[in-house]
Parts: sequence; structure tokens; C-alpha cells
Amino acid sequence: MNRKMVIYLIGQMLKVEAALMALPLIVSLIYKENCYLAFLISIGVALGLGFLMTILFRPKTRVFYAKEGFVIVALAWIAMSLIGATPFVISGEIPSFVDAVFETISGFTTTGSSIVRDVEALSKGILFWRSFTHWIGGMGVLVFVLAIMPKFSDRSIHLIRAEMAGPIVGKLVPKAKDTAKILYLIYIAMTALQVVLLLFGGMNLFDSMVYSFGTAGTGGFGIKANSVGGYSPYCQWVITIFMLLFGINFNLYYFLLLRNFRSVFKNVELWVYVGVITISTGIITANILSRFDGFFDALRHAAFQVSSIATTTGYATDNFDLWPTLSKGIIFLLLFLGGCAGSTAGGLKVSRVLILFKMMRSELHKMLHPRSVNVVKMDGRQIDDQTLRNVGVYFAIYIVGILATFFVLCFEPFNFETNFSAAVTCFNNVGPGFSLVGPAMSFAEYSDISKIVLSFAMLFGRLEIFPLLISLSPSTWSKK
Amino acid sequence: MNRKMVIYLIGQMLKVEAALMALPLIVSLIYKENCYLAFLISIGVALGLGFLMTILFRPKTRVFYAKEGFVIVALAWIAMSLIGATPFVISGEIPSFVDAVFETISGFTTTGSSIVRDVEALSKGILFWRSFTHWIGGMGVLVFVLAIMPKFSDRSIHLIRAEMAGPIVGKLVPKAKDTAKILYLIYIAMTALQVVLLLFGGMNLFDSMVYSFGTAGTGGFGIKANSVGGYSPYCQWVITIFMLLFGINFNLYYFLLLRNFRSVFKNVELWVYVGVITISTGIITANILSRFDGFFDALRHAAFQVSSIATTTGYATDNFDLWPTLSKGIIFLLLFLGGCAGSTAGGLKVSRVLILFKMMRSELHKMLHPRSVNVVKMDGRQIDDQTLRNVGVYFAIYIVGILATFFVLCFEPFNFETNFSAAVTCFNNVGPGFSLVGPAMSFAEYSDISKIVLSFAMLFGRLEIFPLLISLSPSTWSKK
Repeated sequence: MNRKMVIYLIGQMLKVEAALMALPLIVSLIYKENCYLAFLISIGVALGLGFLMTILFRPKTRVFYAKEGFVIVALAWIAMSLIGATPFVISGEIPSFVDAVFETISGFTTTGSSIVRDVEALSKGILFWRSFTHWIGGMGVLVFVLAIMPKFSDRSIHLIRAEMAGPIVGKLVPKAKDTAKILYLIYIAMTALQVVLLLFGGMNLFDSMVYSFGTAGTGGFGIKANSVGGYSPYCQWVITIFMLLFGINFNLYYFLLLRNFRSVFKNVELWVYVGVITISTGIITANILSRFDGFFDALRHAAFQVSSIATTTGYATDNFDLWPTLSKGIIFLLLFLGGCAGSTAGGLKVSRVLILFKMMRSELHKMLHPRSVNVVKMDGRQIDDQTLRNVGVYFAIYIVGILATFFVLCFEPFNFETNFSAAVTCFNNVGPGFSLVGPAMSFAEYSDISKIVLSFAMLFGRLEIFPLLISLSPSTWSKK
Repeated sequence: MNRKMVIYLIGQMLKVEAALMALPLIVSLIYKENCYLAFLISIGVALGLGFLMTILFRPKTRVFYAKEGFVIVALAWIAMSLIGATPFVISGEIPSFVDAVFETISGFTTTGSSIVRDVEALSKGILFWRSFTHWIGGMGVLVFVLAIMPKFSDRSIHLIRAEMAGPIVGKLVPKAKDTAKILYLIYIAMTALQVVLLLFGGMNLFDSMVYSFGTAGTGGFGIKANSVGGYSPYCQWVITIFMLLFGINFNLYYFLLLRNFRSVFKNVELWVYVGVITISTGIITANILSRFDGFFDALRHAAFQVSSIATTTGYATDNFDLWPTLSKGIIFLLLFLGGCAGSTAGGLKVSRVLILFKMMRSELHKMLHPRSVNVVKMDGRQIDDQTLRNVGVYFAIYIVGILATFFVLCFEPFNFETNFSAAVTCFNNVGPGFSLVGPAMSFAEYSDISKIVLSFAMLFGRLEIFPLLISLSPSTWSKK
């Protein structure tokens, strides 16, 4: 284990975080809010720690392997969340440290579950930082560090692999560093486009930035008590479409830029994703028709909610906890799905679910014809045995993780639906659940222990389990 | 596909079923009940169909392969359930055919979910048949056919494999037929012992037989509105112990008979099973202490309920739906576990869960040391890759099956807890769920479509998915 390298990179990451906190600082200064001081102190702490770590632990070699990749990502995300929570505490707007860490992890992991009871009472600077964490966490902060730092060995693809979502993560271009740059440029351009389109709809600049951050990261923190319910239908449709766009594999946008339309068209995951969303929207529209003023009104709410949940964003235009059982059932199932691999969405990912189904079919075939040779293919290419095994094991750990989270929540006095949906929504980085953690409620009622467990569930979900699990395994840290 | 062979064996099975229905016929004659006529007619139908099938479809060769094994088991179980439901309908005690089929499948699959609102209103003959289906289904009816029919090729191990539960099914002795005989002899002896012990406790012969059938098959149909709550603590303890015994791999009893204590002692699954039950009982005892008169009272109810759910029996001594959230949470998790492989219990099976955990550890090791060779072992022996892949895929289909069942139930107007626990409890062959399908309630409120879907869920669970899935696959039936 190249420990110096691990600490060095976390230090670099903290410096980047300090730089990113300059934005909410500027916002608080513009609005003349007292929370500017909290940001100044937090930036100081982040910079101090960052320089201390990078100066004291300058590594002799910058080479690292898969193990270091996992450990760096896990520890960096924990460090980033602890430092990211300090402005909330220092400003006094979220006085409890556990609450602040929960909120920050929910932000960085793009979950959007909140412990804030009255979100409209928070200052602009704090609201901006809260939503900005979604944007930072969406694409991955280490991918960003990688994109801007010079002199990195090409082994750093291990970092992208550990931080990006999905069963198969490849390089767009030969150099990992260039891949990171391309991904971030696409990300920034799309976010900017959404801000402009929301401004066109009459939203002010602050609101449109905050909602674009939440959409881009598929996060879901809002700044109004009724989430997106108070904005115009035009703005709701813009957010719907951008949620869907940010739930698509970013590689496809790169292919589009290269005018490689064939690769986009042949992408099975994309078609399944579009299919699931279309069908779910159709069923829910019919199911909730009587609650709204006509077909188009119902369609808007259904499309918004399906896109929001399927991409694990978590915004709401209506309190879907009050919708009929069938609609709630579809929403519950969508909680697990997640968007496409290589997007900013959480959940299982469409491609992983696809591979699981292909594995099932292959296994049935194998049982009937024991001597046949079976190959599982995706987009025309064979998936190797190691990836298949990994997908199968991932799914098992994922279910065990959700059930374990649920078990801890059972120590709380809340009902089954609350606890179970809380575990599922946090592990899948969606945000709202049902009943007491429904879209109109918050996670404030949970005890500190439950909040810590849910925070870990969000991290496990966002980092796709293995980085954290490997970091927690004693054998990773043995000297041997 | 050896179609003649398939039909022939189903015919044989129907003859056996006719013979087995002679027992409830005798019971109804003893109690001078009108339902004897229903049994007479049903026996006639089963015999008629059975002889027709065995005479018209006498196969040229008795050889069959894995495919035929799966198909025979799936179709035989469906045929057996349809015929087994006729006494309920003809007697008029369960007038709806869908209801009767649900009840019969629930019986044969040893689930114990019931659509009967007032079980105490049923006649003795009908009650006897209802519980006797548990006993028949517990060990598997085709294993029984195999044990008593002459001239069977040794390929018939495929039948045992398809009907017996667990990830690895082996032969105790070289001949499959002898294995089937040994298993049934142990089964009969243990059931008889339980009847005797319950008689000692002052239970009458009828009740002790009925409850022994339900325990032996890990079924759960009772004959009182409060399940086992009205019987003496002694009887409750006897049932607790026998539920646990019937949840253990029957191979271990054979080893005990051979005085091979070493193999029993070294069986990891057994120790995990005992460990999980002990710990769960401990936590629940502490959690429900205030509800009962002292420690031993609470311990009895906790031990009974944990054993009942962990072995997927489903009896209750108290309405556990009213217990604290923590106890309900543990019970919910136990719904998935099931007993040991090779027992009469449903659920995932302890050994399958163990293998899944070993696969997770192995995968983590592989990620850290990509070039290492990993071997997953159980009881000192290596598990081959095919079994590992099968366990992984099984788990994925299992979860998909539960979620799909839940989705259909969402068309009903019931709450989330009711529908979700109904899907879980039926798929795992436990019996009761929570809320509207709790231990004091019934499945009567569900629509016919939901009842049919739940019936299939029970069959999928009992036959461990693959036999039914293979029978439903078009490629199984193609002439090629």
C-alpha cells in the first residue's frame, strides 16, 4: 500500500474542496449574509489540512494499483464530507454535527435526503453550498482532481473506475487524464445549458443554478418546501428532460460529439432506459389522471416523477406518497433501477440489471444443455467471466446492504414502510421514500445512530460498495 | 423431450395422490361428516385420470435427463394441486375454485397462507386433508413416487434434484431410489415421534396429527383461530423443537444413524442455523419482555416465533404483528432465510446464504489481488464454478421474482406493508406476513388474479424457481 500517495491525494482533494467553497462564499457576500464567516473558516481549515498533507506526505512514486484506487476514493469521500459539513455547523444553520454530516454526505452522494425541516429558513450561501455538493459529487471529485492535476501516471484509471458508476468503466481516449477532462467539459456544458433554459422560463439566476446543480448531479436538494411544485410547467419540463439527459451514459455524448451516431443508436442500455421510463410514465399517467386537471397535467407530473426517481434525483412536483398504490409500487421498483452506467445517477444501473437478466437466461440454457458453451453479450461484445461474477456478487452485497441498513432502522419506533423505504432510498441515492420519509417529510426524526448508518448507506451506494468494503477490510491494511 | 415419460409419471403421481386421499376419507367417515362424498369423487377423478395417463402413455424408455426432471416436477405439482383442490370445492367448504387452488398450493408448497376466514368452521375431514398436503409436499411427492415405484433408471436423481431444496443435492447412497426411501423413512419416524410427544401433552389424536403434519412439512396450517396459542406451554415447546428439527438437512439424520458424528459436527450450515436462531431468540426475548409474564414466558413465545419463521413454518403463539418494530424487523429478515438445504423448509436456505457470503469475500480478495486463484469451500470441500454461478443467478431471479409478485399486488388497494410482506412470505413459503396478512388475518381479501399470482409465487419458491421457469420456456418444448 502506497500510504503516502493515499494521504497526498486526499490532501490535494481538500485543496480543491477549499477552492470550490469559494463559490458559496461569494454568494453569501453578494447576499450580505453572516454565513460568509463560516465559509472563510472552513476554507482555512481545508487549505491548512490540504497543504499539511501534501507537504508532509509527498510520495516518492506516483504509481498506484487497484487497491490504492479504492482506498483513496473511500477515504477522500469521507474526508470531503467531514470538511464539507463544517460550514453548516459553524454558521449554526445545522447545529448538530451528525445532522450536518448526514446532509453533506446526502449532498455529495447525490442522494438528496434531508434532515432540514424548514428548508426555506436557510441562508442563500448555505443553500448554494448544499446544492453545489450535488454537482461536485455527481461526476466525482477525484475525477476532477485528476483532470486538473499534472504529472499523473496512467494507472489513475483505477481512480475513475472506483469513483464512476456502473459495471464496466472504460477509457474514452488512451489517457485517463484526458478522459476525465472530456467528461467534465461535457458536464459543465450541459449544466450551463440547463441554467440558460431555466432563466428563459423566468426563474431567477440563483434558483436556476441551484436546481441545475441538483439535476446535473441527480441529487434532489431543493430550496422550497414543495420541491419543484411551485415552478411553471415549462420549468418542470426542462428539469424533467435534463434529469433524463444526466441519467444517460456520458460516453454517448462523447460519441455524439465525434458524430459516431452508430454507437449511440446501438446502445442497448439507452433503449431499455427509454423504454422503462416511457412505460412507467404511461401507467402512472393513467393511474393518477383523476387527481389532476386533464391528461397533460397528469402526464407532466407522471413524467417528472418517473424521471426523478428513475435517475435517482428525487425532486417532486406533487406529494407522490398520496398517489394510488399502483403508482407507489412502480415508484418503489424504480428506486432500485438507477440510470445508465457512466451517468451521474445512483441505483443498480440499467446495464447491471440487463447483465443480470442475460445471466439468468444463460443459466437456464446451461441447465437444459449442460455441455453447451454460453456467452453473455452486451452491445455485440462478449462480457468476460470476471465481470459477470462481479455483477452477480455486487447484486448480492447490494441486497444484503439494504437489508442490513433496514435492520438498524428497526430500532426506531417508525412503521415498516418508513424504515424500509428509507433504507432503499438512501442506498440507491434517490432521496425521498414513503410515509414518514415521503417527499413532503424529512429524515430529521431519526436518531443519530440511524443517521450515521444511513450516511454510510449513501456512501456505499454512491461508491458502489467495493471501495468502502475494501477500505474496511483489515487485510487491506496489513503490512505484508 | 420424452413426453410420454412425463405424462406417464404424472399419471403415476395422480394414483398416489388418490391413495393418499383415502386418509381424509377415513377421517370424514369416522366423524360421520358429509365431506366423505367429496373425497370419494376426488379419488375417483384422480384414479381415472391416473390410469388413463399411465395406460395411454406408457413410455418405450424410462431414461430421462435434467430437462425432463424439471418439467415432470413442475407439471406434477400443478396437476397435484388442481386435483387436490377438488375436495374443498365439491364439499362446498371452499366454494371458489381459485380459493381452493390457492389453499391447496399453499398446502403442498408448505406455505400455510390461508384464504379461510373462519378455520374452526371447517369439517374434520377437510382440515385433515388441508394439513396432510403439508406433509406430502414437505418431502416432495415425486420423491415418494420414486421410493415406491419399481424399475426406475438411476437417472431419476434428476427428479430428486429438482424437487428437493438447496444449492447442492447429493445422493446418500449410490441408488437414487434407496436415497428416496431412506429420506421418507426418517420423515415418517420423526413425524410419528412428534405425534406421540404431543399426545403425552394431553393433545387429542386428531389435533396432534394435524399439527405434526404442519410441523413436519414446515407448513403452518392450523385448526384454531389463534394457531398454536391455545395449547399448553409443553405442546408449544414440543412444536418449537420439532420445527427446528425438520429445518435441518435430513442427510445429517442419516449420518447420525450411521454413527458418523464427525460429519454432523463439521456441518457449517447447521452451526450457522443454530447460531442465527439463538441470537434472534435472544434479541426478541429482551424486546418483548414487557408484553409477557416474566422471562420464561417471553422466551417461549420468542423461541416459538423465531423457529416458526426461520423454518418457514408460520405457526404463531401470539399476534407478532403487534410486537415492537425491532422484533418485526428480525422476523422480516428471517422470512428470507429459510432452514437448511435438504430439509422441508422453504426460503433461500442457510447454505445458499453462506455460499453467497463466501462469494462476496472471494470477490473482494480477487479485486485486491487480481492474479490470485480463489477457491470457495464449504465443509472443507471446494464448490465448483457452476454451482457458484447457479447460486448467484438463483439469488437474482429470487429477488426479481419477489419484486414482480409485489408489483402485481400493487393493483390491490392495500398498504405497502401488506403487499410487500405478502409477496415475501408466499415466495419463501412461510405463511403469515404483516398488517392485513398478519398472523391473525387471512389472504381472503385479495382478488382472484392476485391469488393466482401468489399461488405461482408459492410454487416458484417451493420448487426453487428453475423447474417452473424451464417449463415455461418455449425452447423446452420445441421439437428440435
